[in-house]
Amino acid sequence: MLDFGYPTRMTQSMTVAVLGATGAVGQEFLRLFERRQFPVDELRLLASPRSAGHKMRFRDRDAIVEAVSPESFAGVDLAFFSAGASRSREYAPAAIAAGAIVIDNSSAFRMEPGVPLVIPEINLDAIGPADRLIANPNCTAIILLMAIAPLRTLGTIERVIVSTYQSASGGGAAVMQELEDQTRAVLDGREPEPRHLPHPYAFNLFSHNTPINADGLNEEEAKVIEESRKILGETNLRINVTCVRVPVLRAHTESITVEFSGVAPSEDEVRDVFGRAPGVILVDDRAANHFPMPREASGRAEVLVGRIRRDPSHPNAICLMASGDQLLKGAALNAVQIAERLMQAGRLDPVGLAGAG
Amino acid sequence: MLDFGYPTRMTQSMTVAVLGATGAVGQEFLRLFERRQFPVDELRLLASPRSAGHKMRFRDRDAIVEAVSPESFAGVDLAFFSAGASRSREYAPAAIAAGAIVIDNSSAFRMEPGVPLVIPEINLDAIGPADRLIANPNCTAIILLMAIAPLRTLGTIERVIVSTYQSASGGGAAVMQELEDQTRAVLDGREPEPRHLPHPYAFNLFSHNTPINADGLNEEEAKVIEESRKILGETNLRINVTCVRVPVLRAHTESITVEFSGVAPSEDEVRDVFGRAPGVILVDDRAANHFPMPREASGRAEVLVGRIRRDPSHPNAICLMASGDQLLKGAALNAVQIAERLMQAGRLDPVGLAGAG
Repeated sequence: MLDFGYPTRMTQSMTVAVLGATGAVGQEFLRLFERRQFPVDELRLLASPRSAGHKMRFRDRDAIVEAVSPESFAGVDLAFFSAGASRSREYAPAAIAAGAIVIDNSSAFRMEPGVPLVIPEINLDAIGPADRLIANPNCTAIILLMAIAPLRTLGTIERVIVSTYQSASGGGAAVMQELEDQTRAVLDGREPEPRHLPHPYAFNLFSHNTPINADGLNEEEAKVIEESRKILGETNLRINVTCVRVPVLRAHTESITVEFSGVAPSEDEVRDVFGRAPGVILVDDRAANHFPMPREASGRAEVLVGRIRRDPSHPNAICLMASGDQLLKGAALNAVQIAERLMQAGRLDPVGLAGAG
Repeated sequence: MLDFGYPTRMTQSMTVAVLGATGAVGQEFLRLFERRQFPVDELRLLASPRSAGHKMRFRDRDAIVEAVSPESFAGVDLAFFSAGASRSREYAPAAIAAGAIVIDNSSAFRMEPGVPLVIPEINLDAIGPADRLIANPNCTAIILLMAIAPLRTLGTIERVIVSTYQSASGGGAAVMQELEDQTRAVLDGREPEPRHLPHPYAFNLFSHNTPINADGLNEEEAKVIEESRKILGETNLRINVTCVRVPVLRAHTESITVEFSGVAPSEDEVRDVFGRAPGVILVDDRAANHFPMPREASGRAEVLVGRIRRDPSHPNAICLMASGDQLLKGAALNAVQIAERLMQAGRLDPVGLAGAG
C-alpha cells in the first residue's frame, strides 16, 4: 500500500509540473493544456539535467525546462510524470510530500495494490478520496480496454485474444526519429542503422523489443495482461496478447477477438454499444472498406473501433479492430482526463473554479 | 470438375511460359529459374498487350515480352500463370489444350473441386496423374500453413486464430512502388497520394482492401479460410483470420494461435518439430529478442517461425509468429517447387532428365 497520508490540499491557483517535459508524451501535455484550456496557473517543466535550459512554447511564451530535483515540487498542486519508471520511483515521494497529486505515466506503481490504475471512462471509482498517486495505464492496455470494456454490457467477457500493431511513438521521440531516419536511408539505397531499437525498423516489423519472461511473454504483453485484469477488476480474465512493433509513427492498432461466456452479441448490438460509449468512435463502413487506421487515429482524442464481425471459428466470439493515438489516449490525454475528473470532484481547485466544487 | 482429358505429354525439351512476366511475381519466376537451374530450354514471356515488346534479362540475354493470345501456348510444356484470375480463366483452357501443364497463381481455380491446390511440403499427393491444372494457394494461406501443418504430428488442431501483417508485394509491383512513393512524400512533408490502394499506406496500415462479404470477412480472409481447409483436408477446421496490410515491402508476417483438441504440446516439442520440418526455419531466440521478421524473410526460400510460447489464456493452445517472402514461398517459389516435384515424378521431362524418370 502506498499511502503517503497527506490530506487533499485546497489550492487558490494551480501550479502544474510536467516531469519528462521534452519527451514525446511531455510535449503532448503542453498541447493538451492549451487545447483543453486546462487551468494551469504556473507551469513547471522538468526533465533530466541534459535537457535543462531548453525552451518550449506554451501559450505563446517560452517556458524554460529545469533539471528535476526533489525540491522541484515545492508549491506544485498537480504533477504529470512521464520520464520512465526509475525517475517516477525517485521523485514521486518528494512530489507527494510537497503536497502535489501525481499522475504517473510510467509502469513504476501501476501494479502496487494501493495505487489506482485508471481509465476514466472505465474505472474512475478506483480513485479513493485520499489517493495522491494515480497510475496511468500502459498505452496498449488503454486502447484495448477502451474497445472491450463497453462490451461488458452485452455479456460476460471470458477470453480476449489480441495482436497489436504498435507505432514508433511507444518508444518515444527518439524512436520516432529513428523510424524516419531509417526510412530515408532505405529509400536512398543505404542500410538502415538501428540506434535505440535492436532491429531495423524501416519497412520492417518485429516482436516488441522488451525482455521476454520465463513464460515467453515480453514485458509489454505481461503489462497488458496484468493491467487489464486490474482495471477491469477481473483477476482471472483470460488474455492472449502478441505485441508487435510496426513502422507506423504514432497510433497503435489492435486486432481483437472477444469470447463471451454465452452466445456472442450480434454485430448490430456491438455497433450500438460503441455508438454510445464515451471516448470511442465507430469506424465500420464495409462498403467503403473503411475501418480503424492509425493515420486517422493520430491526433484524435477518441479510440476508433470497427471491423466488427462474428468470429467464424467460435459461436461465442466477435472480432474487431481498434486504433488509438498512443501519445494521446494512450498516454498524455488519459492522464489529463484523470486530472479533469479530479477537478470536477473538487480534488483540485484551480483559480476561478474554486467556488464550483 | 475441371478435367481437360489430355494425356501427359513426354517432351524432349522444356518450353516454359510465364504469363504475367512483367509483374512482381513474374520477375521472381525468372530469378528462380536461374537460381535453381530450372531446366528451361525455351522461355516464353507473356503479358498484356500493354507490356508487349518489353525486354527482360534471362541468363544474360534479353528476352522479349509478347502479348498473350490463345496461340501463345503452342509447344509449351509448362506454363506459370500469374496475371490475375480473369486472365487465368481466359487462357488456361488454351494452354492445356495446347498440351501444357498449367500452374496457376491466381484464385481462379483454387476452390474448383477437381483442381489440386498444392503446397508441396504438405499435400503433394493431391496431384493426380491426369491433372494438368494445378492451383498455387493464396500467399497468406501458404505462409500460415507452412507454420501450422507440421504441428499436426503433435496433436489434432482444433482452431486457428490469425492476425496478419501483410506487405505491399501482395498487391504487386505497382503497390510496392506506391508504398515507396508515398513514404518519400510523407518524409518530404507532402500528402501521400493513394493510387491503387483506397487509403494512405505510408506509415499507416489498414484492413485488407478486398471486398467484404455478408459475414464481414474480406476476400483475403475468406480465401485463407477455405484454402486452408482444402489443403489440410479438414473441411470443418475452425479458423479466425484478420488480414491487415502494413507498410512493409515484401514479406508477410502472421501472429498465430493454435488450439489443439488435447493439451497443447510443450514449447520444446514445437521447436523440435520446426527444427525438422522442410521449408521452415526456427527463429526463436528469446535472449536476443530475435524472432521472425519480414526483413529477414525477404529473399529467403523458407518460412521463418518462432516466438513460440504457451497461450496464457488457454491450456490447449500455443502462440507463434511466422514470416515468409510473399513473392517467393507465397507465390513464385511454391509454383516452381510444384513443377520440380512434377519433374521428379516424371510428369515433365526436360532435356537431359528424360532418361531419369
